[in-house]
Amino acid sequence: MGLEAFMNARSVAVIGASKSETKRGYQAIRTLLDEHYDGEIYPVNPKLDRILGFKCYKSVLDIEGPVDIALIATPAATVPAILKECGRKGIPGAVILAGGFGETGVDGRKLEDEVVRAARAAHVRLIGPNTSGMLNLKNNLNLVGLKGAPKGEIALLTQSGNMALSLITEAKIKSHKGFTYYVGVGNEADIRFHEYLEFFRKDPDTKAILMYVEGMREGRKFLQQAYKTTQEKPIILLKSGRSSTGKRSAGSHTGALAGMSEVAKGAFERAGIIVIENSDELFPAAETLSSCPPIRNNKIAILADGGGHATIAADILTDYGIEIPELSEKTKTKLREILPPAASVVNPVDVAGGTDDDPSLFADCARIILKDSNIGGLLIVGLFGGYGIRFAKTLALKEEDAAHQMGKLMAKRKKPIILHSLYNFEKPHALELLRYYNIPVYDSLDVACKCISVLAQYGNYLRSYHAKTNFVLNWRAKAKPEGDSIIAAALEEGRTSLLEHEAKDLLRLHGAPVTADRLARNADEAVELASSIEGPVALKIASPDILHKSDAGGVILDLKGAKAVRRAFETIIKNARRYRPDADIRGVVVSPMAAKGVEVIIGTKIDDQFGPIIMYGLGGIMVEIIKDVSFRVLPISRLSARKMIEATRSSPILDGVRGNKPCDKKALINLLLICSELVEAYPEIREMDLNPVILHQTGLDVVDARILLQKQEDGQKPD
Amino acid sequence: MGLEAFMNARSVAVIGASKSETKRGYQAIRTLLDEHYDGEIYPVNPKLDRILGFKCYKSVLDIEGPVDIALIATPAATVPAILKECGRKGIPGAVILAGGFGETGVDGRKLEDEVVRAARAAHVRLIGPNTSGMLNLKNNLNLVGLKGAPKGEIALLTQSGNMALSLITEAKIKSHKGFTYYVGVGNEADIRFHEYLEFFRKDPDTKAILMYVEGMREGRKFLQQAYKTTQEKPIILLKSGRSSTGKRSAGSHTGALAGMSEVAKGAFERAGIIVIENSDELFPAAETLSSCPPIRNNKIAILADGGGHATIAADILTDYGIEIPELSEKTKTKLREILPPAASVVNPVDVAGGTDDDPSLFADCARIILKDSNIGGLLIVGLFGGYGIRFAKTLALKEEDAAHQMGKLMAKRKKPIILHSLYNFEKPHALELLRYYNIPVYDSLDVACKCISVLAQYGNYLRSYHAKTNFVLNWRAKAKPEGDSIIAAALEEGRTSLLEHEAKDLLRLHGAPVTADRLARNADEAVELASSIEGPVALKIASPDILHKSDAGGVILDLKGAKAVRRAFETIIKNARRYRPDADIRGVVVSPMAAKGVEVIIGTKIDDQFGPIIMYGLGGIMVEIIKDVSFRVLPISRLSARKMIEATRSSPILDGVRGNKPCDKKALINLLLICSELVEAYPEIREMDLNPVILHQTGLDVVDARILLQKQEDGQKPD
Repeated sequence: MGLEAFMNARSVAVIGASKSETKRGYQAIRTLLDEHYDGEIYPVNPKLDRILGFKCYKSVLDIEGPVDIALIATPAATVPAILKECGRKGIPGAVILAGGFGETGVDGRKLEDEVVRAARAAHVRLIGPNTSGMLNLKNNLNLVGLKGAPKGEIALLTQSGNMALSLITEAKIKSHKGFTYYVGVGNEADIRFHEYLEFFRKDPDTKAILMYVEGMREGRKFLQQAYKTTQEKPIILLKSGRSSTGKRSAGSHTGALAGMSEVAKGAFERAGIIVIENSDELFPAAETLSSCPPIRNNKIAILADGGGHATIAADILTDYGIEIPELSEKTKTKLREILPPAASVVNPVDVAGGTDDDPSLFADCARIILKDSNIGGLLIVGLFGGYGIRFAKTLALKEEDAAHQMGKLMAKRKKPIILHSLYNFEKPHALELLRYYNIPVYDSLDVACKCISVLAQYGNYLRSYHAKTNFVLNWRAKAKPEGDSIIAAALEEGRTSLLEHEAKDLLRLHGAPVTADRLARNADEAVELASSIEGPVALKIASPDILHKSDAGGVILDLKGAKAVRRAFETIIKNARRYRPDADIRGVVVSPMAAKGVEVIIGTKIDDQFGPIIMYGLGGIMVEIIKDVSFRVLPISRLSARKMIEATRSSPILDGVRGNKPCDKKALINLLLICSELVEAYPEIREMDLNPVILHQTGLDVVDARILLQKQEDGQKPD
Repeated sequence: MGLEAFMNARSVAVIGASKSETKRGYQAIRTLLDEHYDGEIYPVNPKLDRILGFKCYKSVLDIEGPVDIALIATPAATVPAILKECGRKGIPGAVILAGGFGETGVDGRKLEDEVVRAARAAHVRLIGPNTSGMLNLKNNLNLVGLKGAPKGEIALLTQSGNMALSLITEAKIKSHKGFTYYVGVGNEADIRFHEYLEFFRKDPDTKAILMYVEGMREGRKFLQQAYKTTQEKPIILLKSGRSSTGKRSAGSHTGALAGMSEVAKGAFERAGIIVIENSDELFPAAETLSSCPPIRNNKIAILADGGGHATIAADILTDYGIEIPELSEKTKTKLREILPPAASVVNPVDVAGGTDDDPSLFADCARIILKDSNIGGLLIVGLFGGYGIRFAKTLALKEEDAAHQMGKLMAKRKKPIILHSLYNFEKPHALELLRYYNIPVYDSLDVACKCISVLAQYGNYLRSYHAKTNFVLNWRAKAKPEGDSIIAAALEEGRTSLLEHEAKDLLRLHGAPVTADRLARNADEAVELASSIEGPVALKIASPDILHKSDAGGVILDLKGAKAVRRAFETIIKNARRYRPDADIRGVVVSPMAAKGVEVIIGTKIDDQFGPIIMYGLGGIMVEIIKDVSFRVLPISRLSARKMIEATRSSPILDGVRGNKPCDKKALINLLLICSELVEAYPEIREMDLNPVILHQTGLDVVDARILLQKQEDGQKPD
């Protein structure tokens, strides 16, 4: 059943209703009353007869009419039994306020599992547990005990009650905007982020979705839903928990670099989500995106009545990658006609005192500037709104006139106007008027800049959107029988990794240019194989028990001649036996030495939150010291592959620097796509590490490949 | 004469006094009256007899009593003549409001020079021109026409009238703190930033100095003064104009990287200045630093009544490099005694509902936490101040009790407490009490985090301070006669650079290990020199007209045997002639090939704002692509040299990675110190470029050295 049944509930049972003012079981009923909930309220408490004028029921089963939602305000341990009753009553959804579940450790997790099982059996969907509740401002279904939350067009979805309180308080005090719904997801035990998101996507009254996230249980489904949503309405999200990324899972070299935070931010942005890092900017960004048109060309103008604010704004916007282009000659000429000679008409436009006598000139400037087809939006910074306060009272009327004009101008041109005013605190009428026309007003210059920049960011996303990856994995579709056999053989032997030559065979099977590795079981075979190869060769140990071959003394490079090859074979075997006496040694792989070139690394792993991801970086110090790597959630498109290469700071090296020829970027892109295909084709691949891959002017060589496996249950498709 | 004479003026002449309400010549008098200036006011206007009850004078010369400061509100062109009269009257200082000077271009610059000459001749010091004025809140000397600026202990020094207005408005609305002085420096035509700074340093009522800077005329003198000041009181500074750094002066390779902004931020911080990047944090940082003790150990605790705020705060503080250590066992035990079982006592401490009935528990927690000797400060985040609003009115009294306790606690422990409260907007009495006790309160979590972090930053600076470089250059002190001769000879020939072997001779003279270069004037000499060198040699063109030798085909490396050397000599000469037919070719330098090692680059140049600076970075792609370089203002100490190496992201490479041995970092530090010494010893050195320097396990080789010169007037010491 969809969430509509209880998100828009027309009747509520408050289980654990109370007469004590400090209890949630009292506050909930009080708030529903005070906020004029337009549905039925049924208090439930076996010990009471009446509460706040309502009849109190012993059990939900005693309630006469239908119940759409249950607010469960009783302790954790009581919840499973209550859910059973809710099921019998046919209540489609419940909010569980109590903490003491998964967040407290092993015992809590057990109780949480029990609650989820009970809910599934009873066909009751759960919000929480460990939540501050939910709020539907369209029918005043207020299940958070918080009064006076402003109504509006933003849906609020958070993992912290306090952050919700912060955001609602901020909206109430600073804005004219408000909310359609609030949901505290709590432990996400049953209903997950992506399900709420889908509900908000389909809600016609919701214009933007504002989220605070600490961690997600089903990140990939969320990305899939977000990707659909952001084509219709913006999602604004703050993700905390960066600092805990210090605890990275050990494991393979590549895996060690794949921290959650880097992956999450990139994935969210690729799904069109506006990721906010600064909590002060979270509500303003949502407010702006819910009320202003996005900027279509990443280009804005700044209009100022003083140098300092304009300079700071230009700095910040440049950092955000927004262009502040020179205005057209025609625009400049028209501005010069109405501004004093000292004014700057380049961009930022500085009125240089031109508005001192008549601040309605701001509207004239705005009209001229937004007519410039090269300008996608306007940021006004400085004193507007304060002319009437600071200089002469009559100027307030001129400001109000300007506000009316600018409000209509934004609607007409479909280009946003954002205003910074240091008089915002004093709430002059002109600024209230701007808000009425959906022009956001901020007293913080930093926030105003951020807000115009997110309009550009969302506009850029919408503009660049076309057949992008939708985060859906097409499991096994491109698997090949030979590939399946390689993996099946390894798994059958009880191995959790492929031998290097098997890994390379698998890569080759899907078109990757790997160096030709052949397994030699003894020194004679090694010499024979080496003699069949032109140029020097490399020898590497082949053992399922030795993953880090160099550490074991299991790699010798650049060998010429039979004698050298024979000696190297023996040395490697000896080293390997010493390194791990019980190792299952299959022999030594013989391969031609790859020509020199630029070394890069490609890796894939399974992220806890998002499933399969891929990493790319330049080899050697660029990965190890500078950590110059980029991540994508798989599968990737050709465009994604190119962008993830360009996202590294070292990418100009591939274009050829210091006299070197450019590398074959197309071959590299193809290899990234092959890796993406392999992970989709064989869900048994847990981790893949191509290190190094050597890029040449034409083509490339996968010199070393490591693939770790995991068993898949028959027919099971991960994700 | 010092600035006291007019900064604390007991009498003001308002030149250009007016009866028109919109004119500054009226507003100034009106404001002095309204704000109760406790000195004499003398309007000056030849056309008027009386203004606002005051006698109006034809000229300053007609005023009977002494005049300490003149506020000049007349147009730019009239200023020189007025200053002459001010001089005759013996007025020590003047504020010039008018714009139309250096900021408008060539003609304006001429007028500005004329004004400065007139002022010097008349012994009048100038504030401005192009300024919004100055403000002394101690005696209500208000020369900015802005009413109601709050009094306090912060001196405000800005280059933008609007930014001053923003900061004063913010103080008025959000804080209990205010200002001693405000000065708008305007064009800095006469009095410079460092002079105001010295005045504020010496002012006993000023506890912190708040600055907004776009650019400085004498950056080095400012650094010298700032370095003195920050030992006594904090300086908080926002520098704008980052984005214009795109326009970097061309010139040498190293020079091209030395953008103003990178240099400025580093230099300011090394002088102990707290550099703020976000304008929202500027006033709060100053407020906090003016009223709280600095943190002595970079370690803080977070106390929260909800998970979301604590998580976000931990993220932000970790980004700022602040430690959030686990509390001691003793502290945890004591916290457990007063908090509910679900509370987290690790750090962040989460009261988990423990304060719901009694918010005075916050004070108990604070007392226990600040007793922990490992904790240097406390950040409280969440709802404090709102318990009385949100839950029950009686809780407000408990909050007030807690506020009194925490205020006294901070004073007793000399450890700062900063509070974030989402109820700050509602101005509950408990929060007003905290402010009374100098505990800063912010509704922004980001701002609260920044504020506690600047206390740590300032504490770290004070702690690490010992005999640091004071930014004073000891010109010529370590010059050597042979060095002087090398430079003199080049300058005498009219050259603006040293030949490579001359540059190396100069470096060698001061102890730098340079490769042994010898000049061969013909092929025979080249062959002879090469034969006297063990191993292969390098040949490089020697011409004062060819600075970029490789571009001219003027470098051939790794030559073995007489034949190869002879052919290389001829090729190089031919290439050079083709590259620049009129070049003065002195021959070819022969040098041994340096052993392989890690390549680094060292450069020095003269920064427009700060004078001599030095740059260091790892050679090759790390400089060219990653721009991984660090800058310091010269001279540098041994500690500075080490820190600038460590400041690059690639510095672990010097410690040996991927099986390489560590490099001789001590030799590198010595070389940086030698470069510093050279620049001080020979003020004729305009730019120096050592590229590459090759580091070995023991020692290093300066392989290529380029030194550009500038003529110095006899006896002139720059700066």
